[in-house]
Amino acid sequence: MTFGVDAKGVYPIAATPFNADLSVDYDSVDRLTEFYQDAGATGMTILGILGEAQKLEPEESLTIARRVIARSRVPVVVGVSNPSFAVMRRLAREATDAGAAGVMLAPASHLRSDEQIAAYFHHCVEAIGPDVPWALQDYPLTLSVVLSVPMISRIMKEHPSCVMLKAEDWPGLEKISAIRKLQATGDLRKFSILTANGGLFLDFEPERGSDGAMTGYAFPDMLVELDRLHREGERDAAHDLFDAHLPLIRFEQQQGIGLAVRKYVLMRRGAITSDVQRSPRSSLTPTGRSEVDYLLERLARKDPRARL
Amino acid sequence: MTFGVDAKGVYPIAATPFNADLSVDYDSVDRLTEFYQDAGATGMTILGILGEAQKLEPEESLTIARRVIARSRVPVVVGVSNPSFAVMRRLAREATDAGAAGVMLAPASHLRSDEQIAAYFHHCVEAIGPDVPWALQDYPLTLSVVLSVPMISRIMKEHPSCVMLKAEDWPGLEKISAIRKLQATGDLRKFSILTANGGLFLDFEPERGSDGAMTGYAFPDMLVELDRLHREGERDAAHDLFDAHLPLIRFEQQQGIGLAVRKYVLMRRGAITSDVQRSPRSSLTPTGRSEVDYLLERLARKDPRARL
Amino acid sequence: MTFGVDAKGVYPIAATPFNADLSVDYDSVDRLTEFYQDAGATGMTILGILGEAQKLEPEESLTIARRVIARSRVPVVVGVSNPSFAVMRRLAREATDAGAAGVMLAPASHLRSDEQIAAYFHHCVEAIGPDVPWALQDYPLTLSVVLSVPMISRIMKEHPSCVMLKAEDWPGLEKISAIRKLQATGDLRKFSILTANGGLFLDFEPERGSDGAMTGYAFPDMLVELDRLHREGERDAAHDLFDAHLPLIRFEQQQGIGLAVRKYVLMRRGAITSDVQRSPRSSLTPTGRSEVDYLLERLARKDPRARL
Amino acid sequence: MTFGVDAKGVYPIAATPFNADLSVDYDSVDRLTEFYQDAGATGMTILGILGEAQKLEPEESLTIARRVIARSRVPVVVGVSNPSFAVMRRLAREATDAGAAGVMLAPASHLRSDEQIAAYFHHCVEAIGPDVPWALQDYPLTLSVVLSVPMISRIMKEHPSCVMLKAEDWPGLEKISAIRKLQATGDLRKFSILTANGGLFLDFEPERGSDGAMTGYAFPDMLVELDRLHREGERDAAHDLFDAHLPLIRFEQQQGIGLAVRKYVLMRRGAITSDVQRSPRSSLTPTGRSEVDYLLERLARKDPRARL
Repeated sequence: MTFGVDAKGVYPIAATPFNADLSVDYDSVDRLTEFYQDAGATGMTILGILGEAQKLEPEESLTIARRVIARSRVPVVVGVSNPSFAVMRRLAREATDAGAAGVMLAPASHLRSDEQIAAYFHHCVEAIGPDVPWALQDYPLTLSVVLSVPMISRIMKEHPSCVMLKAEDWPGLEKISAIRKLQATGDLRKFSILTANGGLFLDFEPERGSDGAMTGYAFPDMLVELDRLHREGERDAAHDLFDAHLPLIRFEQQQGIGLAVRKYVLMRRGAITSDVQRSPRSSLTPTGRSEVDYLLERLARKDPRARL
Repeated sequence: MTFGVDAKGVYPIAATPFNADLSVDYDSVDRLTEFYQDAGATGMTILGILGEAQKLEPEESLTIARRVIARSRVPVVVGVSNPSFAVMRRLAREATDAGAAGVMLAPASHLRSDEQIAAYFHHCVEAIGPDVPWALQDYPLTLSVVLSVPMISRIMKEHPSCVMLKAEDWPGLEKISAIRKLQATGDLRKFSILTANGGLFLDFEPERGSDGAMTGYAFPDMLVELDRLHREGERDAAHDLFDAHLPLIRFEQQQGIGLAVRKYVLMRRGAITSDVQRSPRSSLTPTGRSEVDYLLERLARKDPRARL
Repeated sequence: MTFGVDAKGVYPIAATPFNADLSVDYDSVDRLTEFYQDAGATGMTILGILGEAQKLEPEESLTIARRVIARSRVPVVVGVSNPSFAVMRRLAREATDAGAAGVMLAPASHLRSDEQIAAYFHHCVEAIGPDVPWALQDYPLTLSVVLSVPMISRIMKEHPSCVMLKAEDWPGLEKISAIRKLQATGDLRKFSILTANGGLFLDFEPERGSDGAMTGYAFPDMLVELDRLHREGERDAAHDLFDAHLPLIRFEQQQGIGLAVRKYVLMRRGAITSDVQRSPRSSLTPTGRSEVDYLLERLARKDPRARL
Repeated sequence: MTFGVDAKGVYPIAATPFNADLSVDYDSVDRLTEFYQDAGATGMTILGILGEAQKLEPEESLTIARRVIARSRVPVVVGVSNPSFAVMRRLAREATDAGAAGVMLAPASHLRSDEQIAAYFHHCVEAIGPDVPWALQDYPLTLSVVLSVPMISRIMKEHPSCVMLKAEDWPGLEKISAIRKLQATGDLRKFSILTANGGLFLDFEPERGSDGAMTGYAFPDMLVELDRLHREGERDAAHDLFDAHLPLIRFEQQQGIGLAVRKYVLMRRGAITSDVQRSPRSSLTPTGRSEVDYLLERLARKDPRARL
């Protein structure tokens, strides 16, 4: 499986684990890399917002990237979005040199008109180089930039190196259908669509034509199983599995504290040693933790494989 | 039960039904008013965003308000947010004259600093009059205005006529706890907190101290039952009921098409005759409708009372 | 001179004068209407932001529109932008019935993508009617919506009833040139361009191809003279006149207090009786007034016709 | 003269000169450093937005900072605003180690409520260290963050290391007066206020109590002379000088192409060799250049010292 227009399956967005003294916990980095692969991931995405990329020194980012890539048997995609094109250029070059399969780019939040967006991605591709495969992140809720279907089509036409849409518009189901329809008629070239939005619509997105998931939900094994059920046409079973996880999926998908929830669950699952974050952070209060514990208990009753 | 600092229970946000020719369907207005009351609502909120208020002529708004108020045995709250203070003043006066129990106000989306927000609500209260009880809508996701706990405290201190917080910040659980803590220590006066956000966190919000729900979810009867279970301390039963509805709750809570989903479900439940909207509208495609149908089927299996 | 694709000259944006008791001062409305026409205006724009339209009751707006139109010997354009299409429809119909030459529309501030903007103006034209001539306001600084040249071209192609661009992008000189170039090659149909932005670039805009000014600067007589000098190719004289007024033009062009400055100058010039505003207002402090007085003194020394 | 609460005079915002091959032109860096000092600057600000900081590799930034600091006889302030606190921390440490007198910080553009802004600056000061003097940039037009007078007071109270306000709110005159009044009554501690906004209100700001200018206007010698006239109470002469430069000041203060105008004028004045920018850039068209040339000709007639 390569990172290209045929990519499918599950690309977890990886957290970055820290030690109690806030240094990078490289043992947990290794453990987490194995955890995602054992879960059946077909790829990995590192150094995104969820990965606390903005709290890392450049040398740390590079060391993490090299460590994950060295240990990974699946393609690794590296987030390189940055307000500085100089920084973006360096990140992309270093990640590629380290063996990354590709990079991920999001539109800068000040962009408004389609012309501005088009110009922005021309500068991005100039920075990362025209041969580096990349995923386009469509996440208006957080990024404040709206990419219409014609705008996505334009980006895909102007940049053959864009191989994937990370679809997390909200609502987004009709958008997937609209893109797939354009591709079916030949009006738009082929590319992969992995969906995100914390997985909040993963019960219907594959039915609309998506190829898989790219999200940081702390049960990537369930995402893989869900993907399998969808592929095999087990609609009811897929929805049953999804519904069992939805209360937790929904709880994780809270802007700001989602990272805290995910790190806490990953810690409880043994994938990382500590759920500590670097500053600035949004931590779970004791009440918040007990709510997650309660959701995990309920989940274990509904999906025995999710037992901790 | 009155609309005041002791308000509790369920205040549905009412849709506005139209006939096929896009005139107001007053029979359905009546039917919907009965529907909400039969469901056990303790109040009603009309002419909000969900009620397509901005697509109504002033005379229509007034006629609807009078009609609902005349038929309602519970307090009716009228949305009066408007960029024009002149329009807000008139709406508030007319609604109050018609017998409304109070009004609802949201911060205008251009507001940024706390000083600007404070000044804005002074102008609002000047417009609606200092004796009209009102609910403060805290909905940053849609309104783009962030109300911190100190800011909410300031508004509550400066405006004794504000009796309710419509809490729909996201994440919002800690905010409810923080407010309740300030009230417990006497640092903040008493007021009601009803939660919204489409009901997406109604499993935990009452545990944090909220008094009920103010949302347009198309199963208000379930909201009433959920409220009862919470009050009686039936935690597991409350979560079971909530989890059964969560797939639909989540589906409704899609910006833009949420109204289409709700009107469609209300129509299927017989509460209104047609799910037509006035322009501009975001309609459900046939695929979207079939997804809602599928969710309704699944819901009926989990919660027999939700059978259509 | 009609309001159409050939419109040129000066369309002042009219203030709305109030009495000390905050009722509309209709005598001053009449006086101001004469003032603008005596100054040589080729049209007038009323009920815009500067006209405090949002502080008027609907009946007041209509009465003002009728009064101005009845007394005006030049075309009157009425601002009808409103978040409610129902209100916009009514305003446009009433204004047109009252004899308005056309209306002005601005994009709603929540719009982002080109697709959203295109859909918005379709709804607008549906609301005002396809036969009502209108001016498109391009003012990203205040409206937060960016209209690229391709987007403006698309609007002009899709709506033959749009006859004018009120150009106040910032920077905006190259945009005027780009549009005129498209029109010269036949890739874009003809329409009028009047510039605004408080007049801050009126020294160069006509050299780039604009047809005149649509702004509330309190010396419309100077705008008319400036327009004449530009038309007659008196470049240095035009810039001399502009430079003499620039300190005041710049002072007026302060978001928020610009209206206060303009009403104060209009009052000092005798065009209106009082500079009072309805709430919410940003008033001039005594220091602010003395600064305007000082600028007026200096202006009178440089441009004797501007003597009060 | 040190960078502290008593700072006054003119702190030019320095451009970053490049060679034709887009490498940093260190000879011009040296020349520009001399140019600003010869002009009478009391300090310098480098690596801001105007300095194209985001287009520089980290090593380049550091080399430029060291080079300017080594040659400068006045305090050098370094812009360290960055979405990554890790990057901000490193920039601040390296700049301080290199001998910078202090740093400049702007609020991140996603901040809304006063609580968020307060938390942000706590993280900033944690990152740069509590002993590093810094200037607070108040520039809502570009940064989208509104700092009210109470918010500025709070920041000043919570952070003794903040020694300066770079005031560029718009309108901003009353804000300066309000702050100076609070300081006069002892309700707010002393700090320096330098004004920016391209210099667009430098005729009145010193009369309101500002201590000088921090802007990139390409005639820093004029800013120094203007500062002298204001200090000596030569009001009319100060306004005469300002008015002569206002057409160019206004032309430079165009978002996006302001940098192009300034580099072009600096090149024509011989302070740098080339006006080339790194990508992404907004260049002057030939027409734009000829407009600047025309403004320079007119300026030279009004202010002989501005002759090129």
